[in-house]
Amino acid sequence: MNKQPYVAVCGPANASEQELEWAEEVGRLIANAGAVLVCGGLGGVMDAAARGCEAAGGLSVGILPGDVRGHASQHLTVAIPTGLGEARNTLVVRAADAVIAISGEFGTLSEIALALKIGKPVVGLGTWELAKRGTPVDAIVRADSPLEAAKKALDLAG
Amino acid sequence: MNKQPYVAVCGPANASEQELEWAEEVGRLIANAGAVLVCGGLGGVMDAAARGCEAAGGLSVGILPGDVRGHASQHLTVAIPTGLGEARNTLVVRAADAVIAISGEFGTLSEIALALKIGKPVVGLGTWELAKRGTPVDAIVRADSPLEAAKKALDLAG
Amino acid sequence: MNKQPYVAVCGPANASEQELEWAEEVGRLIANAGAVLVCGGLGGVMDAAARGCEAAGGLSVGILPGDVRGHASQHLTVAIPTGLGEARNTLVVRAADAVIAISGEFGTLSEIALALKIGKPVVGLGTWELAKRGTPVDAIVRADSPLEAAKKALDLAG
Amino acid sequence: MNKQPYVAVCGPANASEQELEWAEEVGRLIANAGAVLVCGGLGGVMDAAARGCEAAGGLSVGILPGDVRGHASQHLTVAIPTGLGEARNTLVVRAADAVIAISGEFGTLSEIALALKIGKPVVGLGTWELAKRGTPVDAIVRADSPLEAAKKALDLAG
Repeated sequence: MNKQPYVAVCGPANASEQELEWAEEVGRLIANAGAVLVCGGLGGVMDAAARGCEAAGGLSVGILPGDVRGHASQHLTVAIPTGLGEARNTLVVRAADAVIAISGEFGTLSEIALALKIGKPVVGLGTWELAKRGTPVDAIVRADSPLEAAKKALDLAG
Repeated sequence: MNKQPYVAVCGPANASEQELEWAEEVGRLIANAGAVLVCGGLGGVMDAAARGCEAAGGLSVGILPGDVRGHASQHLTVAIPTGLGEARNTLVVRAADAVIAISGEFGTLSEIALALKIGKPVVGLGTWELAKRGTPVDAIVRADSPLEAAKKALDLAG
Repeated sequence: MNKQPYVAVCGPANASEQELEWAEEVGRLIANAGAVLVCGGLGGVMDAAARGCEAAGGLSVGILPGDVRGHASQHLTVAIPTGLGEARNTLVVRAADAVIAISGEFGTLSEIALALKIGKPVVGLGTWELAKRGTPVDAIVRADSPLEAAKKALDLAG
Repeated sequence: MNKQPYVAVCGPANASEQELEWAEEVGRLIANAGAVLVCGGLGGVMDAAARGCEAAGGLSVGILPGDVRGHASQHLTVAIPTGLGEARNTLVVRAADAVIAISGEFGTLSEIALALKIGKPVVGLGTWELAKRGTPVDAIVRADSPLEAAKKALDLAG
């Protein structure tokens, strides 16, 4: 039963309307493709992605930093409280075959970096831009819409 | 969707026929009760519990020590490779509302101890017996059958 | 500089006078042998072992479950807050070449079990006794005094 | 004994001559200030920082991703194998009061991001530049020399 691709969706707990719409749409598309959604299990982008996944009848897993399942998004299929704090960011990307980063703050940036470090492809939708000594580092595959992001991530996860 | 109880099943990767039968039956009973099965995601008791859960149409999550999903039991609904080594034992019990220990070696003993440390009830089926200075420590709720183990764990997880 | 043996001392945060004396003496003996003391970094047995180590001019490392260094024993040379909760128990034994368990509750039992699981020798001083189906499992090397415990652990760590 | 500041030095295992010189100098300055050096414990920048710290008689701690102490830099005072893989990056920054990032690849970027996420100040020496939607995010305090980096980190760690 673990032949499906797993796609992580990372993004801020405090999200704008647009970010929430993007996340919900991405969650729906992941579910429609028969993939498993992985996320950090809390609010904002994580909750919206889980909601989209649920609406499309998909399977989602939230990997929480704290130790209380009740703090998880109510739209997740499975909620895993880890008690590991921010070390759980490593687990979110480790559990995924590809990562979609939607906007995001430093937590999302850490997930992007950890994913790239361990060789997981990252698709970005309005997310961080990276450079070293003035030269852009184009390690994030860019998408301009939830549809493009989901397509690219599903391709890369294959 | 995270209102169901989560019950972890812990036990050896190298298991006897009886242990495998117990685990499969426990997995089936957890699924029949509408609870989520959590396990370490590998072979032996873990695989048998996932198989029983799958046969009854239930939902199971395996939390793996390594970083390769392909090493997981094929009967799991969701497989989470953590790359944390034995530190994942803490996650297995942290994710559960109650733990069933079936027989087991030192890994299972660590899960029993971690569960008791963080206040999760543990039901034992042919598992470790604990004592200090000659006096038994009866912290594990004993069961004599898979049915009794599942019933007690589901009650305690409630 | 990392040629010395590392010996972990595990035991309860709420300890009796005798347990504290044992731990302090063990800490002193580890330091006298030129070994590094590892512990969980908090109070009781952990603090007493660090105090003994400090008194003998030794080097000690505390690996804390929380994320605040100020909660560490003031007698440690180095205090590492991990923010991992009980998952840090795995780190304490992983960092050691041998483990001394002094009395202890379920946290100590988890460290004994994790150490045995990953092949680290465990010396016990008034600590847990293990059995399966009525048959003792003698995996813990027994000691009757801090001196004997330290000697055996240093031998096994070598 | 845990009143000193702890400063983490992060950077690539495969480092240029200049990066190694910077790291060694930073390690020396941290030691001279009586602070504790924290690093990832492996080669390149980590090893060079430990070497500089050792030369100045300082105290250093390496927190390793693997489970073999023998893989650590020989210049560390204390080497902690964690077996956590990349999740140890969280521990490196969690253990520090301030972080110095020297150049670096995605692993270093993850440490920068995790540090900023949990509120630890980050000083950068020739390291990553961050932006969102074309606007630079100046969360990293910039330094142009090892001396400036060490000074700023020690000030911020205070």
